[in-house]
Amino acid sequence: MNLVEKIKTGDVRSIARFITLIEKRDSESIEAIKKIYPQCGRAHLIGITGPPGVGKSCLVAALIRKLRQENRSVGVLAVDPTSPFSGGALLGDRARMMEISGDKEIFIRSLASRGAKGGLSAAVNDAADILDVSGKDVILIETVGVGQGEVDIARLAHTVLLVLMPGYGDTLQAMKAGIMEIADFFVVNKSDKPGADETVAELTTVQNFQPNRGNGDRWAIPIVKTSAVTGAGIDDLVSSIFKHYQFIRDRSLLTQKNKERRTRQFLDILTQRIRDEFMEVLKTDPALQRWVKKIGTLELDPYSASEQVIDLIKEAREQRRGSREESACH
Amino acid sequence: MNLVEKIKTGDVRSIARFITLIEKRDSESIEAIKKIYPQCGRAHLIGITGPPGVGKSCLVAALIRKLRQENRSVGVLAVDPTSPFSGGALLGDRARMMEISGDKEIFIRSLASRGAKGGLSAAVNDAADILDVSGKDVILIETVGVGQGEVDIARLAHTVLLVLMPGYGDTLQAMKAGIMEIADFFVVNKSDKPGADETVAELTTVQNFQPNRGNGDRWAIPIVKTSAVTGAGIDDLVSSIFKHYQFIRDRSLLTQKNKERRTRQFLDILTQRIRDEFMEVLKTDPALQRWVKKIGTLELDPYSASEQVIDLIKEAREQRRGSREESACH
Repeated sequence: MNLVEKIKTGDVRSIARFITLIEKRDSESIEAIKKIYPQCGRAHLIGITGPPGVGKSCLVAALIRKLRQENRSVGVLAVDPTSPFSGGALLGDRARMMEISGDKEIFIRSLASRGAKGGLSAAVNDAADILDVSGKDVILIETVGVGQGEVDIARLAHTVLLVLMPGYGDTLQAMKAGIMEIADFFVVNKSDKPGADETVAELTTVQNFQPNRGNGDRWAIPIVKTSAVTGAGIDDLVSSIFKHYQFIRDRSLLTQKNKERRTRQFLDILTQRIRDEFMEVLKTDPALQRWVKKIGTLELDPYSASEQVIDLIKEAREQRRGSREESACH
Repeated sequence: MNLVEKIKTGDVRSIARFITLIEKRDSESIEAIKKIYPQCGRAHLIGITGPPGVGKSCLVAALIRKLRQENRSVGVLAVDPTSPFSGGALLGDRARMMEISGDKEIFIRSLASRGAKGGLSAAVNDAADILDVSGKDVILIETVGVGQGEVDIARLAHTVLLVLMPGYGDTLQAMKAGIMEIADFFVVNKSDKPGADETVAELTTVQNFQPNRGNGDRWAIPIVKTSAVTGAGIDDLVSSIFKHYQFIRDRSLLTQKNKERRTRQFLDILTQRIRDEFMEVLKTDPALQRWVKKIGTLELDPYSASEQVIDLIKEAREQRRGSREESACH
């Protein structure tokens, strides 16, 4: 049985191996991704994002427990380099982690951001597809909401939770980082700590600025207080998450989100391939070397250089169109 | 006198206006960048990077003062969203800030990361070129060293300072983020606080792993203790920074760094243009819409789709090459 067939059975070792290969951009694993692609689209993708220290990983653990009680299978992708999942065990939560690690219906994996330029988002997309085809009902994607790359990864989820904590003063930072705009839930975790009400008040102000909130096709962002440690608020959060999923499904917003995700994924892969191909050809092609040298020696500016390449692509597309071939971009 | 001529005279308002226009990707300002491009390459670009709270902005202020004492003109680009420069004044350092703000040989500007996908790195490159052509001797680029995008921005500098502080425990985080690999200096700021020696010891361990350190063409990364508040270590740091500049100039490493920067810049601009053009054409072209729809409905996987476009580009380049035109990529 090959890798593709094996992951469909939910085989844990095969899933792990497939993700490892896809992280390395191994060419055979990319051929395998092409094969599983038509079978994706069944899982509910949930993004959990927020600054370090707000207890995202503990919240993920609490969500896993609740989801398992409801008999849903769960995949977790931890993209956060500060996540204890990256170390293999939940800090201060080892007993519960053991409970989780014995369950075959849970698959947890961290993805390294190091050196994965352009590749991290691609790896997360592919890993999510692998977990999807392996039969996981829900896939949790944990990212630290700092930097555009991280925001882009959170954006691939159907439901995005922005996690904050009392007194963190992070509301403004989160707004600056652009993560507020993509959140479907504001979660105030560690809500048993002092200052929870102030944080809720701050978030209510943000909430009130949301255009057309709760108006027809606009989801009204709930503010949910939780304590991942005591378990307070977790049941409500999970049922609200599924209400959100129902909301977007009922309005074809799910289809729209999937379409946007796939278009971005295609453009990410395409532009990374263009970079890779360019650097590869540059190694051996003297004509290209001469041309690039001009950019380095300030004879040719990078904007004009880009325009030359864009014109070349447009021209090629026109020629294709002219010859009426049913092919790329047609 | 047009904008290009005016910035050459160092006119502060024209520099500010030019950077504002280029941040918005205004098309006329891009034409202006093309014009100034051949006159770039005189300034020394220094990257100052590190986690929030280590005192990067105070260090920048201390560097400015020292550089001005040496009669060097200074440009500052603050890309760090947590930088007090973004607010227009140095936190807790207003008196010194006033001293700075009265000096025509200093230009300070913050660049927002919000919503500048692909564009932030482009904006920083262009802003650095504008300051370069305006006659600034040294350009300081402050970034928070978290996330690949931020690391890429630091990479455009000739000399990169990784700033840490005692007891922060950030050494490991910095290593994970890949910022260690591009640092030319490890700066332990706030070195009057307890734990400075431990941090130096940690960094010495990292330093010892540097391949071929101090061996011919390899710069041995110094560990410099500073206190931006008391001014301790600043003079040594500045003279070491200029030793590094001399070191890379003597070994044509400067030319190499510039070449790599410009190649990356070109690829950033090209790939962003490809994305923009694609989304633009997608709005009106039914054939492209049908093709993209297939990706969204899982009929066509994004890898195969990318390969189709790459093949189209290769084919176009071959045709060009065949017709022996001296043009794009030739």
